[in-house]
Amino acid sequence: MPRVNDVLQHLDGDQKQAQKRLCDLLSIPSVSTDPTYSANLRKAAHWIADQLVEMGMNGVVHETAGHPVVMGQSDDIPDAPTVLYYGHYDVQPPDPIDAWTTPPFEPTIRNNAVYARGASDDKGQVCCILEAMRAWQQVHGKLPINVKIIIEGEEEIGSANLPAFIQEHKNELAADVVVISDTTMWDDSTVAITYGLRGLLYFDLKLHGPSRDLHSGMYGGILANPASLITRVLGKLLDDNNHITIAGFYDDVLALTDDERSRWVQLGFDQVQYLGDVGVNTPFGEAGFETLERKWVRPSCDVNGLYGGYMGQGAKTVIPSFAGAKVSFRLAANQDPQKIADQFHAWINSHDVGGCRWEITEHGRANPVIVPIDSPHLAAASCAIEKASGKPPVLVREGATIPIVTDFKSILGIDSLLVGFGLVDDCIHSPNEKFNLDCFRLGCRSHAVMLQQFA
Amino acid sequence: MPRVNDVLQHLDGDQKQAQKRLCDLLSIPSVSTDPTYSANLRKAAHWIADQLVEMGMNGVVHETAGHPVVMGQSDDIPDAPTVLYYGHYDVQPPDPIDAWTTPPFEPTIRNNAVYARGASDDKGQVCCILEAMRAWQQVHGKLPINVKIIIEGEEEIGSANLPAFIQEHKNELAADVVVISDTTMWDDSTVAITYGLRGLLYFDLKLHGPSRDLHSGMYGGILANPASLITRVLGKLLDDNNHITIAGFYDDVLALTDDERSRWVQLGFDQVQYLGDVGVNTPFGEAGFETLERKWVRPSCDVNGLYGGYMGQGAKTVIPSFAGAKVSFRLAANQDPQKIADQFHAWINSHDVGGCRWEITEHGRANPVIVPIDSPHLAAASCAIEKASGKPPVLVREGATIPIVTDFKSILGIDSLLVGFGLVDDCIHSPNEKFNLDCFRLGCRSHAVMLQQFA
Repeated sequence: MPRVNDVLQHLDGDQKQAQKRLCDLLSIPSVSTDPTYSANLRKAAHWIADQLVEMGMNGVVHETAGHPVVMGQSDDIPDAPTVLYYGHYDVQPPDPIDAWTTPPFEPTIRNNAVYARGASDDKGQVCCILEAMRAWQQVHGKLPINVKIIIEGEEEIGSANLPAFIQEHKNELAADVVVISDTTMWDDSTVAITYGLRGLLYFDLKLHGPSRDLHSGMYGGILANPASLITRVLGKLLDDNNHITIAGFYDDVLALTDDERSRWVQLGFDQVQYLGDVGVNTPFGEAGFETLERKWVRPSCDVNGLYGGYMGQGAKTVIPSFAGAKVSFRLAANQDPQKIADQFHAWINSHDVGGCRWEITEHGRANPVIVPIDSPHLAAASCAIEKASGKPPVLVREGATIPIVTDFKSILGIDSLLVGFGLVDDCIHSPNEKFNLDCFRLGCRSHAVMLQQFA
Repeated sequence: MPRVNDVLQHLDGDQKQAQKRLCDLLSIPSVSTDPTYSANLRKAAHWIADQLVEMGMNGVVHETAGHPVVMGQSDDIPDAPTVLYYGHYDVQPPDPIDAWTTPPFEPTIRNNAVYARGASDDKGQVCCILEAMRAWQQVHGKLPINVKIIIEGEEEIGSANLPAFIQEHKNELAADVVVISDTTMWDDSTVAITYGLRGLLYFDLKLHGPSRDLHSGMYGGILANPASLITRVLGKLLDDNNHITIAGFYDDVLALTDDERSRWVQLGFDQVQYLGDVGVNTPFGEAGFETLERKWVRPSCDVNGLYGGYMGQGAKTVIPSFAGAKVSFRLAANQDPQKIADQFHAWINSHDVGGCRWEITEHGRANPVIVPIDSPHLAAASCAIEKASGKPPVLVREGATIPIVTDFKSILGIDSLLVGFGLVDDCIHSPNEKFNLDCFRLGCRSHAVMLQQFA
């Protein structure tokens, strides 16, 4: 097994240069959702490809129907395992700009962190991977395993073009495991390996009533008001125990295992602080479950938005011609989005809406994910993280969704290993996003040791 | 009794000039809600005062904390009855401007109607009164009764300054009855006298939850989502029979009398057409009542607007920090807005909202109104309308609200007589508002004969 200590030493000595490279990437405003930034997305893609070439890999920018995908591959080492690394170079919009202490695309180091849009999500984490590879290359002239890398530019807008791209490049992307670095640590000294993600199903529901907005004096009480009726229907989505009332909804939900339950107790999750940080004093959710189980294991249903009728200041006595809601489900392991979608449509249509008409649009779905926790890759990663951080990682699940994990499984037939170095307070998607320099260093070191351990 | 036939003949001969005067008033953009129009409100007030002076009355523009009030009074005729006329010179905003066939403040005559903002609501109806008085003055040199007139400039924004003004000018405004011309005819050949109005109670309800918008993956299912909970609470406002569920809500509601019921059958109300005109095929409302009873006699409750969370195109997986709704009640005769407001607050607070916090703002209330249908003034008006239109008027109620009626009753101690000449399809508050020239003529004639009949 090639020696990793020299690599770690090199990384430590090279930190200032590594930070400079990260800041170079962060200064490219690669906001994927806004077409006016397109040239910057291409620029970011080429910046990454150039890095790959510089460290002796073939880095190629592939055009897609949307923003480009960067792919890279190291020189072939026969009989060595192959690991595919995934990340994304696109970022969320920086709005509201005024709330930033320093400009979002002028990376600034203060408080031992680099502040910029994308610092933690996901450019900083992508750079951890690149720096680890660069260090191996510089110290040993080669990587210890076969490395493939795919960095996309549409993660923040739903990765619409990626599944087809993976399908098309199925052979080039063949690997033993995918490593994804786009999650957070458990706390600022403990790395987390995420082995479970909830799925997602998101709808826009619009209820159409009269042909135009009406005066509530002339029409109040004599016809179906879509704003009133949408509250009546959606108000029944959860019962008073916060159980979702859709028939069959929980049929496929897997129970928490005793093993998981006892492991989670060790985590010492502090719900008072977790909720208190967002101004919430009262835990609230499905009766019979604790907060961590509600968040990681149980499905949930949220109204994400409401609109319709008069939404301004003061009063307007209108019966609106339509009202709408955004409604989404977080799906538990083993729930099938298609089955839930069918059940939800049936549920919606089971209510009397007095002749009003539903317009239902689906805006995205993702399968829930559970990856095996007894795989050799996970064992190798754990070992590597303990060496790099001085502390074994914890195994966690996440309530959110990384849809591409399912695509890697279904198209390439491989599991993902989710190891991230962000912190919960990194303000991803918010103003003043940051990436702690200690996390950056730990990420670089951890990936360097993982490369060795995978070998 | 002074002869009215000469007056009617004069009115007919003077129609073109009367239309011209109406168009003069309509060309003043007196939009009360928008401060940039203030000078035009004053201009409209002075235009009316000038008309009053021109016809031998003292017309005075009184300043208020808001837009001015015009008052006028005819020369005193001892022992003659005194009638107070009320109307408003302010208009709704013309938006959306692009939807107008001709500009809203360039009155245009086509299809036997004058098109302009305020044509029917209420400048056209105010001009009917002014023209009737002018004709009496020109033919007989005086009015047959004591006339007082009050035309305000804040009706479209809630008449906030009018009650205090009436209180302050209580003695000058003393009269036997108020005549209000701001309602519609039953159909295009049948005048309606409105003897009942529903009351109003309007709230903005805002439910506050977490201190900021949250990611629904990280927080979905573990804390109270204000958008979900506001639907749960508001969804219970009406039960499946569309009865309002607030405890005690119906306690004071008066039942329809047999007399009213049998009179209303005669009206031949066509609910299929009334609902069909606004694209509604299914009558919907409180179980056990017909459409007309629901509209005129029964209280109602409507959600007038919903807002909060993500309201744009597509998807954002957010748990919003707040969600809100506009909720209003139309109150039945004998219901007390204060009592209902108290009941509603208690009802709202009876629901578990998982630690979220309500912010409840009241945006207006009005008492329901029933005026006696056996008064001599109503008899005189009926007689006059039959003479002017060739057809006796029908007695109707209205589902909407004219708050000032209650103030006239409580401050001046007098009932209102609601006789209007608009048509249901006049598009008041909408683009392409109009006032039919036949209605204008009928309004002038009816008011002329009413002046005689009140004598």
